[in-house]
Amino acid sequence: METIRLLAGHPAFTLHHIYASKSAGKGFADAYPAFSGVFEKQMLPMEALDEDDADAMVLALPHGHSMAVVQKLVDRGYTGRIVDLGSDFRLKNTAEYEQYYGQEHAAPHLIPGFVYGLSEWFTADIKQAAHLANPGCFATAIQLALLPLVHDHLLDTVSITAITGSSGSGATASDTTHFSTRFGNMKAYKIFGHQHEGEIYQSIRSLSVWSGRLHFTPVSGPFVRGIWAAINVKLTRPADLQPVFEQAYALKPFVRVTKTAPELKHVIGSNFTDIGWKQQDLDAVIVVAMDNLVKGAAGQAVQNLNLMFGLDETAGLLTPPLVL
Amino acid sequence: METIRLLAGHPAFTLHHIYASKSAGKGFADAYPAFSGVFEKQMLPMEALDEDDADAMVLALPHGHSMAVVQKLVDRGYTGRIVDLGSDFRLKNTAEYEQYYGQEHAAPHLIPGFVYGLSEWFTADIKQAAHLANPGCFATAIQLALLPLVHDHLLDTVSITAITGSSGSGATASDTTHFSTRFGNMKAYKIFGHQHEGEIYQSIRSLSVWSGRLHFTPVSGPFVRGIWAAINVKLTRPADLQPVFEQAYALKPFVRVTKTAPELKHVIGSNFTDIGWKQQDLDAVIVVAMDNLVKGAAGQAVQNLNLMFGLDETAGLLTPPLVL
Amino acid sequence: METIRLLAGHPAFTLHHIYASKSAGKGFADAYPAFSGVFEKQMLPMEALDEDDADAMVLALPHGHSMAVVQKLVDRGYTGRIVDLGSDFRLKNTAEYEQYYGQEHAAPHLIPGFVYGLSEWFTADIKQAAHLANPGCFATAIQLALLPLVHDHLLDTVSITAITGSSGSGATASDTTHFSTRFGNMKAYKIFGHQHEGEIYQSIRSLSVWSGRLHFTPVSGPFVRGIWAAINVKLTRPADLQPVFEQAYALKPFVRVTKTAPELKHVIGSNFTDIGWKQQDLDAVIVVAMDNLVKGAAGQAVQNLNLMFGLDETAGLLTPPLVL
Amino acid sequence: METIRLLAGHPAFTLHHIYASKSAGKGFADAYPAFSGVFEKQMLPMEALDEDDADAMVLALPHGHSMAVVQKLVDRGYTGRIVDLGSDFRLKNTAEYEQYYGQEHAAPHLIPGFVYGLSEWFTADIKQAAHLANPGCFATAIQLALLPLVHDHLLDTVSITAITGSSGSGATASDTTHFSTRFGNMKAYKIFGHQHEGEIYQSIRSLSVWSGRLHFTPVSGPFVRGIWAAINVKLTRPADLQPVFEQAYALKPFVRVTKTAPELKHVIGSNFTDIGWKQQDLDAVIVVAMDNLVKGAAGQAVQNLNLMFGLDETAGLLTPPLVL
Repeated sequence: METIRLLAGHPAFTLHHIYASKSAGKGFADAYPAFSGVFEKQMLPMEALDEDDADAMVLALPHGHSMAVVQKLVDRGYTGRIVDLGSDFRLKNTAEYEQYYGQEHAAPHLIPGFVYGLSEWFTADIKQAAHLANPGCFATAIQLALLPLVHDHLLDTVSITAITGSSGSGATASDTTHFSTRFGNMKAYKIFGHQHEGEIYQSIRSLSVWSGRLHFTPVSGPFVRGIWAAINVKLTRPADLQPVFEQAYALKPFVRVTKTAPELKHVIGSNFTDIGWKQQDLDAVIVVAMDNLVKGAAGQAVQNLNLMFGLDETAGLLTPPLVL
Repeated sequence: METIRLLAGHPAFTLHHIYASKSAGKGFADAYPAFSGVFEKQMLPMEALDEDDADAMVLALPHGHSMAVVQKLVDRGYTGRIVDLGSDFRLKNTAEYEQYYGQEHAAPHLIPGFVYGLSEWFTADIKQAAHLANPGCFATAIQLALLPLVHDHLLDTVSITAITGSSGSGATASDTTHFSTRFGNMKAYKIFGHQHEGEIYQSIRSLSVWSGRLHFTPVSGPFVRGIWAAINVKLTRPADLQPVFEQAYALKPFVRVTKTAPELKHVIGSNFTDIGWKQQDLDAVIVVAMDNLVKGAAGQAVQNLNLMFGLDETAGLLTPPLVL
Repeated sequence: METIRLLAGHPAFTLHHIYASKSAGKGFADAYPAFSGVFEKQMLPMEALDEDDADAMVLALPHGHSMAVVQKLVDRGYTGRIVDLGSDFRLKNTAEYEQYYGQEHAAPHLIPGFVYGLSEWFTADIKQAAHLANPGCFATAIQLALLPLVHDHLLDTVSITAITGSSGSGATASDTTHFSTRFGNMKAYKIFGHQHEGEIYQSIRSLSVWSGRLHFTPVSGPFVRGIWAAINVKLTRPADLQPVFEQAYALKPFVRVTKTAPELKHVIGSNFTDIGWKQQDLDAVIVVAMDNLVKGAAGQAVQNLNLMFGLDETAGLLTPPLVL
Repeated sequence: METIRLLAGHPAFTLHHIYASKSAGKGFADAYPAFSGVFEKQMLPMEALDEDDADAMVLALPHGHSMAVVQKLVDRGYTGRIVDLGSDFRLKNTAEYEQYYGQEHAAPHLIPGFVYGLSEWFTADIKQAAHLANPGCFATAIQLALLPLVHDHLLDTVSITAITGSSGSGATASDTTHFSTRFGNMKAYKIFGHQHEGEIYQSIRSLSVWSGRLHFTPVSGPFVRGIWAAINVKLTRPADLQPVFEQAYALKPFVRVTKTAPELKHVIGSNFTDIGWKQQDLDAVIVVAMDNLVKGAAGQAVQNLNLMFGLDETAGLLTPPLVL
C-alpha cells in the first residue's frame, strides 16, 4: 500500500499493474477504500506476472516468498529491474541467512545478483543494480546512525534501544498488534537476537574492521508509524561528531543532521531520516528518527528505483512530513 | 480478568476457584503476569466445576456458552447464585433472542429463572435473584441515561451515538482491534442493528409504553477502556431534566449526575456512570460516560452480587477512577 | 504550516513569501524543523506585507485579526486574490457575527466582497471571487453531509455528534489540549452553541427554506487530525439517499460517497471528505470523515485558489491519504 | 490527586485535611469531578496548615516550595511525620543540589533531618524517619534496576534510555505536553543532564565505590502513565543476574523479578516495579517498568508512611494493575 501511495504521484514512473494473491480480481480501491479516487486499478492474479514486461518490479511479499518469484522471473528471461522489499536477498552469506532466519536459503545462486540497497552508502552499486534487496526498517535507521562512525574508525562499543510502530508488524492481527495490549504500552522483544543485526554487521564489515557487538533491544511502541532509536556509543578516540555526520551526509538529501535530538513526528510520512546526538568525552548518544514505512521500506525502494534509472534521487519523494 | 481484579480486594467475597478451558492448569499470574504478587491461584479445568459448591459463580464465557454450563449446574443441583456476564439470558422473549442473535435459544426453560441485572432499576428483583443476567455494556450506559425519561413519560424520539474502547471487543486479535487500524481512527459499525437494542427495548417496555425507535450508532473509538455516548432526545413535553435525573438516582451511589457533560476519563477504572445534559426547549443531548469493563461488565456483576447477598451495594467498589 | 505543506509541492503556485509576527526573521525550517530540506525560506515581518504584490495571499491569523489586515491591503490598493482561513468574513450578517462571536464586526463594509468558500456548493461564485472566506472545519464536514438533503427539501430534523482532533484547537497549549487530559478521553463542549452553526444556517438558507434547528454536539477526541461526525436526520418524505448524494457530488472529486460508513483514517492527510449512511424508513444516520486541517482548512483553501485561478480543482491535492 | 486516590481507601490512615493555594475553599470533588462520591472534602488554605496536628503530612508542592513549608512546620513545633514528594530534600550535599537544580538551597540545616525514601534499599532508616524525601520517578526506576548490581560490585558501565508518560510533567499545559505534539511522538530531552542523576549517584555511593558515569537519556513518550527503561550494562565479571535480583528483592513485595522483559501496562495503577533482563557474556540489558505516579511518587510515599508507622508495607497498596 505504501509503495503505491508513493508511486501514485511519481513524476517518472507509471504504476502499470498490481499483482495479488488473495485480493486478485478486486479493484485496489475496493480492497483499500482510502485510495478511492486516487488509484483504482484492478489487481491481477500472481500468475499473470509471467507475461509482464514492466521496466521494474517491486516485490512486497511475506518473508521467504520472493525467492520463488525471482526464480520464475529469471527463468522466463525477464530483464527489467527487481526491487525486493523482503529479507530474502539481503544477506550475502547463506550461513548467516540460516543463522538469522532459521531456515536454509532456497535460491543461493540468485544472491550474488542482488545489491544491498542502503541508498546513502552503496549508491554506486545501486545505480548499476539489476536486482536490489531493500534494507530492513530497523537496519536502515541503525546503519544510517552508525556507519559514519564505522567509516571513520570511531566506533568502539554500542548499545541500541529502538522503538517501532505497529505498522512494522504487518496487517495480520495478532496479540502483539492488538490495540488493547499495545495502547499506552512499551514492550521489548527479541533482545540481542533481532534478525536485522545480520545486515548491519554485513555493512559494517564492508566498510571497516570492527570486532564489537551490537547490543540491540527492539521495542514495540504505542504508535503506528515510525522508528525512533537511542544509540549509546563509546568512541575509540576523542572526536567531534558534527563533521563526521556532516561529511557523511552532505550530499545525501534524505538524511538530515539535526541540531538537537530529533523527534519522531518530524519525519512521519516522509523519506527523511533525522539524526542528532549528544556527546560527553568518549561517550555519545545518537538519536535517530525515521518513518519505518517510507525510508524504512517503500520510500527507500522508490529512492533506489530513482538511482537505478538514473533519475534524481529525490524524484517523487520530497513531500513534507505530516508533522501533526 | 476484570472480575478478578475487583474481587481480589473485596471485603466480603473470597475468590475460591477459577476455571478455564485453554489455560487450565496454569497459574493465573503465569497467564496474566500483571497479577503476579496479587492473585496467583492455579486455574482449574472446566470439568472440575461439577464439584464446586461456592456460594456464587460468575460466568465470563463466549456468547452462547453459558446455556450449557448453567444447564449442567442446575442438573447436578447446584443451589448457589449464578451471575452470567454474557448475553444468553438477558432477553425474556426467545423470538427476540433469535432476532438479535441470529440463532435459536438452546435452553429457553432456564430463562425465567434469570433476573436482568441493571442494578439501579431492578434492585428489588436483583436482591431476590438466584440467577442473574448481567446487562451488556452499551445497554447499561444507554439505559441509565434513558430510563429516567421513560419512567416519567418524557421520551419522544431518540438517537444515540456511542463510542466504545477496544476492550469491548475481547482479547482475540482481529482486524477491528488491530492497533494500526484503530489508532487515531473512528469507525461506526452495526448502525441501527446492534444486538444490545433488544435488552434496552425490553427494559423500556417494563417501565412504560413507548412506541418509538432507538436509532443507535455504535462506534469503535481509539482508546481501550470506556463507553462515551451522546444521546439526542426530543421530549414529549417541556420539562427540566435536573429533578428527573436527581430523583432517579438520589439513592444510587454509582450514578453521578454531573453539572456539565461528563468526560470519559473521569470514570475509568471505577464503577461510576456519569450523566450530564444540555437542554433547548424540547430537545436535549444527554452525555454518558462509563467504564465498559467495570459498570459495563465486571463491576456491575460485583454490585449485583453485593445486592444478592444483602451487602452494602458499594462493597469493594468505591475505589476512585484512574483519571490520568 | 499545513498550507505550506500543500503549496510546497503545488504544480502551479509558487510560495513567494511567508509573513509572521513572533517568528519573523527566522527561517521557516528553524521554527518548524520538520520542513528542513523541504521549505526553508526566511519569514518576513508582517509589516513587509505592505509591499507584496503576490497574485494571491492566504491569511492564517487568530480570530478577529484578518479584518485589519484586509483593510490595509485594500487601502493600499492590493488587487490580488485573498483567501482568509479565519472566521472574520464568513457570515454575511453582522448581527449574526455578533451573536456567534460575541463582538461587533470591525469592518462590515468589507464583508460583501467575500465569497463563502465551500468549494462544492458555491463553485461558480468562488471562480469569480477576489476575496474568499474559507469555511470552518466542523462547518465544512456538516454542510457537505446536509446540503444535498437541504437542496432536495428532504431535511426535517437533525442532530449532530462531531468529534474533532486536537489540531483543531491550535498550537497554544491549554487544559483542553494537555496530553494527560485528552489521551483516551472524550469530552463534549459548547453543546448547542458552537459558532460554526452560523455559517451552516447561512448556507442552508441560501439553498432552501428550512425552519429546523441544528442540534450540534462538538466533541474533543483522542487523536490529532480529523473530524468524524454521526448525523442523525429525519427525512421529510421517504427517499433513497443514494441518488441524492451521487447527484450532488458526481462531478466533485473531493467528496467520496462510500458504500459503508466511512472511517476517519481513510481521509487523513488528504483533501477528501467521505460520506456514507444507513437508512431506516424516514430516519437515517449520515457518517462523515474529513481531515480538519486539509479539507477543513488549508486543503480547501488550495482547492479554492485552484478554482479562483481557473486551474484544475485538484491541482496539487490528489495525494493519497496516510491511512496508517 | 494520586496521593488522595491511594489514601482514600487506606485501611489505617484517614485523610484529615487537604490544603491548597489556588483551589482553597473549593470542594475537592468540585476541582476534580472524578472524585465525586469518593472524596469530597473542602480544601483549606495553606495558612490553616499552621494549626494542623495530623500524625503525618504529605507535601506535593512545586519544586523549591517545600523548604519554606517545612521550615514553618519545624518553627511552630510540629512533631508529626513529614513526607515530601518534591526534590528539595533528596540530596544531602548542597553543592550537588546547586549543580543539579541551578539554585542555592534555602534551608540546608533541614537536610540532615530527612531520610531518602527509596523504600526497598533504605528500609531501616525509613522506619525511624521523622522527615522523608520521596525519590524522583526516574530515579526510583533506575535505582531499583541498578542497585543490586552496585551492591554486588557487578556494575562496570551503564547507559539508560528511559521513556516517561506525560503525567510526569505535571498538570500545567506546555508545548511538551500538548496533545498535538506528543501523540505518536518520541522526544529525548536533557540527555546526559537530568537532575535525577544526582540522587542516583548519591545512593550508589552509599552502597559501594563506583567511578563510572550514568549515561541517561530521558524521553517523552506518547502515553500518560508510566516509566519504561532499557538499561544497558557491562558487568565487572561474569555473573548470572537471576540470583542477584532475587536476593535483592526476595522480601520486597513491590519489586517483581519477571521471566521476560516486563511490559509497561502490567504495572499501571499499581505500586509494582517489574524488572527483567537479557544477558550475553558481560553485557546485559535490564528492562524496568513502573507507574511514575504510584511507585514513582504517591505510592512510594504511602509505602514509606506504612514503614514509618510500623504498618505492613503493603497496607492499602496491593490493588492489581489496570492492565487494560
